[in-house]
Amino acid sequence: MRGVDIIRKKRDGEPLTAAEIEFVVSGAASGMLPDYQLAALLMAIMLRGMDAEETALLTEAMVRSGVRLDLSSIDGVKVDKHSTGGVGDKTSLVVAPVAAACGVRVPMMSGRGLGHTGGTLDKLEAIPGFRVDLTPGELRRALDEVGCAMIGQTNEMAPADRTLYALRDATATVESVPLITASIMSKKIAEGIDALVLDVKTGRGAFMKSEAESRRLAASLVRTGAAAGVRTEAIITRMDAPLGRTVGNALEVVEAIEALKGRAPEDLLEVCTALAARMLVLGRAATDPADARRLVQEAIRSGAAVDRLRRIIEYQGGDPWVVDDYSRLPAAPERTVLPAPRAGFLAALDAELIGRASVCLGAGRDRTRDPIDPAVGIRLLAKPGERVRAADPILELHYRDRGQLEAALPLAARAIVVEDEPPALPPLIAGEIV
Amino acid sequence: MRGVDIIRKKRDGEPLTAAEIEFVVSGAASGMLPDYQLAALLMAIMLRGMDAEETALLTEAMVRSGVRLDLSSIDGVKVDKHSTGGVGDKTSLVVAPVAAACGVRVPMMSGRGLGHTGGTLDKLEAIPGFRVDLTPGELRRALDEVGCAMIGQTNEMAPADRTLYALRDATATVESVPLITASIMSKKIAEGIDALVLDVKTGRGAFMKSEAESRRLAASLVRTGAAAGVRTEAIITRMDAPLGRTVGNALEVVEAIEALKGRAPEDLLEVCTALAARMLVLGRAATDPADARRLVQEAIRSGAAVDRLRRIIEYQGGDPWVVDDYSRLPAAPERTVLPAPRAGFLAALDAELIGRASVCLGAGRDRTRDPIDPAVGIRLLAKPGERVRAADPILELHYRDRGQLEAALPLAARAIVVEDEPPALPPLIAGEIV
Repeated sequence: MRGVDIIRKKRDGEPLTAAEIEFVVSGAASGMLPDYQLAALLMAIMLRGMDAEETALLTEAMVRSGVRLDLSSIDGVKVDKHSTGGVGDKTSLVVAPVAAACGVRVPMMSGRGLGHTGGTLDKLEAIPGFRVDLTPGELRRALDEVGCAMIGQTNEMAPADRTLYALRDATATVESVPLITASIMSKKIAEGIDALVLDVKTGRGAFMKSEAESRRLAASLVRTGAAAGVRTEAIITRMDAPLGRTVGNALEVVEAIEALKGRAPEDLLEVCTALAARMLVLGRAATDPADARRLVQEAIRSGAAVDRLRRIIEYQGGDPWVVDDYSRLPAAPERTVLPAPRAGFLAALDAELIGRASVCLGAGRDRTRDPIDPAVGIRLLAKPGERVRAADPILELHYRDRGQLEAALPLAARAIVVEDEPPALPPLIAGEIV
Repeated sequence: MRGVDIIRKKRDGEPLTAAEIEFVVSGAASGMLPDYQLAALLMAIMLRGMDAEETALLTEAMVRSGVRLDLSSIDGVKVDKHSTGGVGDKTSLVVAPVAAACGVRVPMMSGRGLGHTGGTLDKLEAIPGFRVDLTPGELRRALDEVGCAMIGQTNEMAPADRTLYALRDATATVESVPLITASIMSKKIAEGIDALVLDVKTGRGAFMKSEAESRRLAASLVRTGAAAGVRTEAIITRMDAPLGRTVGNALEVVEAIEALKGRAPEDLLEVCTALAARMLVLGRAATDPADARRLVQEAIRSGAAVDRLRRIIEYQGGDPWVVDDYSRLPAAPERTVLPAPRAGFLAALDAELIGRASVCLGAGRDRTRDPIDPAVGIRLLAKPGERVRAADPILELHYRDRGQLEAALPLAARAIVVEDEPPALPPLIAGEIV
């Protein structure tokens, strides 16, 4: 088998066989297939596509390129939740302890922020002492004792994805549905979970800008999970404005804890409830969606959910007192406010621009190895749809460095859109694929 | 400027600017742009195309990546001829001395055989002592004194093409019209010629299998030459069966010399006359095509053409007596004959299969550095359209090694197609682009 023949086949729009896909993925993992052949193949896949069977084969080959965790010794249904990436998206910090408090086993494996989107690992590491690099043994014990662990991907899981992802980033082949599917699902399947709930973001701050694209991606993810024996469901949620009222790591940790204490902004509560309820049903902790929603509300009301977060933090080496004393979290030394440019209705707070502004402040990164500052970020003092007067405060920027602030300000200012008429805001949950 | 943004633009089907194309080509020549980004861009160009302006910009940037010969000190119009590659295509060995004998200056720069197609340099090197690596000074003197030199590309000319060509070969992006155009035309323009006649092959033994593709390529080559100030014309010729009656380096040298002595097979004479006549008109050695054809015939009839070949060989260090004594050329020790499988009409002698059979015998190469055997090859004892009896000899294989013969025989046998009815053979010259 030769790389060039496989590239030619895909270039001409033909489906690849299981053996050809295995050749490519093992070649990517071992380094035997040169980067330039992989790059040409990725572009051919980007432009010619892959059908459902090829996507499943690609995903499974990527799982086989590394180790697959065995969680069969853990009682109960193991359910994870994954988001395709948004701005201000702290739902993982809310739904993981909620679902665990309701009896679901939640081995949650997350990523770091990249570009304008944030990452759960960065948010968790804003908590002093929190360790995301548990060993497989520690993960198993955490699931047994706490019912939940929130960790990062290890180097041993789906190693072919690291090679392919780095190449995709450098060759403008990130936005391909089959390639995104294989990248996400290979890592999820390697976790050894039984079920998965996906939050596929759509809109200005998402990788997929249109609902049609997001729906295609969601369908591909769900189908590929099912093909690998992982019961998978997806909801599609709007990511035009940041979710909730904070963007930035420590700020979002506080907002997530507040949500667990029953004080979530409406949009954050809506998405978290939808995701957690699906996790409960898939995890057999609830009999149906209505039952699940009731259990979720009860876990929050009773304090069981926030207590579960305390135990997760403690188990993973973090300072559990942050849950009660937010002053134990890092805070930025300086603040400044961006006002409404005129009176009217707040029509938009562009999630991508606010995400990029928060990267300028140091809350995120453009390259995988860049350091981040957990303290800085942006607070949303108003949300789209609200009536505003001229000079009303809209965004509060928490910053450390004047130069970073100056880079962030024009982006943040452009994110604020005020219009005369109230905006027509689409429903937050745009659809679901089950 | 970043490589990934240029790739994304072409991926999305947008035209690239002059500055972007310059960035890519100088990055390819210097090695600053990584192979994987070039490979992804090549695939995007392959699938999304380039318009005429982009193709001209790419060609000119590739010329600028190296040195451009200055032949302005040579009197007269400098005209080259180039073929896109075929099987048994020895026309260069015929038309260069013919055009030079008629007063055209012919700085002919050729390539080596690759895959099933032959190369003029390999054929010339079948002549003992012949040197194709003239210095620019030697080339100028040869044009002054002999009116013609037949040489290889130097490392200093269009170096970006070497990088890109090697990548295209490994990434299934060879067959792109804009990429072929830039590769051919950058080297031709760097030669410092005034005019160019192209022989674009079409059919089974050509890179372009369909006449429509070949016509698109011919139009792109002619347009790109004109944009760079090189008057360029193209003819499109059928390459379903090998041209003439020999395939293999020394065998083809003999056939070319025979053609210069007025004993060319009909098809070879037709293509050579069409090409040489165009060279004479472009080179202002003839007033019109009819005048040019008369001059070509006269150069052959009078012996001026074959005498010019003698002088070219002598000037370039070869043994000029081969022209009169073919036994001075290498010859294979063994021969075997493939017969017609049954009576009927010879419907086809598949050029690609015969080309591949000749590679098996050692006459060509699959990788650029493989050595070749000048002596071996295949003689066509019948041509498509002829009536044959069962067991009539069709192909005569000249070989050195039994193992090579055994690899070649099944390919050669498959190349012979006998049918009951006489085949409808399309005209050899399928079109022209001027």
